[in-house]
Amino acid sequence: MILHDFLPSGNGYKIRLTCAKLGLYYQLKEYDITQGDTRTEAFLALSPNGKIPVLELDDGHCLSESNSILLYLAEAHQSDLLPNDPLDKAEVTKWLFWEQYSHEPNIASVRFWLTHNAMTELKEKMLPERIQQGHAALTLMDDQLSKQDFLAGNRLTLADICLFAYTHVAEEGGAYQLSDYPNVQRWIQDIQAQNWFIPITHRQ
Amino acid sequence: MILHDFLPSGNGYKIRLTCAKLGLYYQLKEYDITQGDTRTEAFLALSPNGKIPVLELDDGHCLSESNSILLYLAEAHQSDLLPNDPLDKAEVTKWLFWEQYSHEPNIASVRFWLTHNAMTELKEKMLPERIQQGHAALTLMDDQLSKQDFLAGNRLTLADICLFAYTHVAEEGGAYQLSDYPNVQRWIQDIQAQNWFIPITHRQ
Repeated sequence: MILHDFLPSGNGYKIRLTCAKLGLYYQLKEYDITQGDTRTEAFLALSPNGKIPVLELDDGHCLSESNSILLYLAEAHQSDLLPNDPLDKAEVTKWLFWEQYSHEPNIASVRFWLTHNAMTELKEKMLPERIQQGHAALTLMDDQLSKQDFLAGNRLTLADICLFAYTHVAEEGGAYQLSDYPNVQRWIQDIQAQNWFIPITHRQ
Repeated sequence: MILHDFLPSGNGYKIRLTCAKLGLYYQLKEYDITQGDTRTEAFLALSPNGKIPVLELDDGHCLSESNSILLYLAEAHQSDLLPNDPLDKAEVTKWLFWEQYSHEPNIASVRFWLTHNAMTELKEKMLPERIQQGHAALTLMDDQLSKQDFLAGNRLTLADICLFAYTHVAEEGGAYQLSDYPNVQRWIQDIQAQNWFIPITHRQ
């Protein structure tokens, strides 16, 4: 497999973490999304949406949307990162969709704006509301993690890998302090202690 | 089952359409999200995120996040709305995640702002970029639907139900004209022609 990716991306990191857990090998092809590398004709042929990560399978089939790729990898490899029972599975996918709508725009985008010199006058005006919603997202996670070890129950699932990716770097840019969320901090340490864990900067 | 919902919501409508296709009965419990009905203690006990739709199963289990509920319903009822093969399934879930991140904030939120008198000075400033991204989303759908009958292939899946919900009312508020997207218009008519189709205002 070829993973088309940008190393600082949490979306790509979700795939890299899942591959580490599943013991899957891939070739990493890096793109600098800040330099328009994913807007080229060659990249758009891989994914019309023009976004990393794209996972190119050995048969040439290209998968996009990070959380869809997570579901694919867990199902194709029958991993316990995704339960079989539809109700248990819904507990996991709930977090995956929540991440895209309620977490990523407020945690990941804010981090990108602040660390990649991407602020504009409009983004400056949007920032307070985004940060407020980001705190709401972290509070919701912290409440859940005060009641159980992992987001979708007492064992680690795709929900944790998905949310870990941008949560553990939420402080980058200075908008959030994870010490405000002690249960989230405990959960981050529990994931970092897994024997398959790799940091976001790790190249396979 | 009890569907906790707000009738004009496209997110709720996805569930209502899927239940219509699967022939599932539910009791509809309506909330006016513009009046804070989903911020009450009683509602937050159903779903800490405070958002409709919530599907309360007969055993009291509450499911949230509309696209997660779609996956649950299709899997629990072994519907062909979701293929079994992991690769084919990934084609469907790709659109479900894309909807949450690239479609809903630009099509659904813009419709809500413009039709529910929810504009603020900040939203006025955000509007041009949102509309530009909404056109990009509709263009991507139109391109895909120029090549095949439905979004994830040549038969109707959850991807179509999910994207239909807010796309078919995209004109409400005046930000978009669907006549700019003839393949999307054709696809909307094809879905409306299904013998199980119900309009967004339909009460079961």
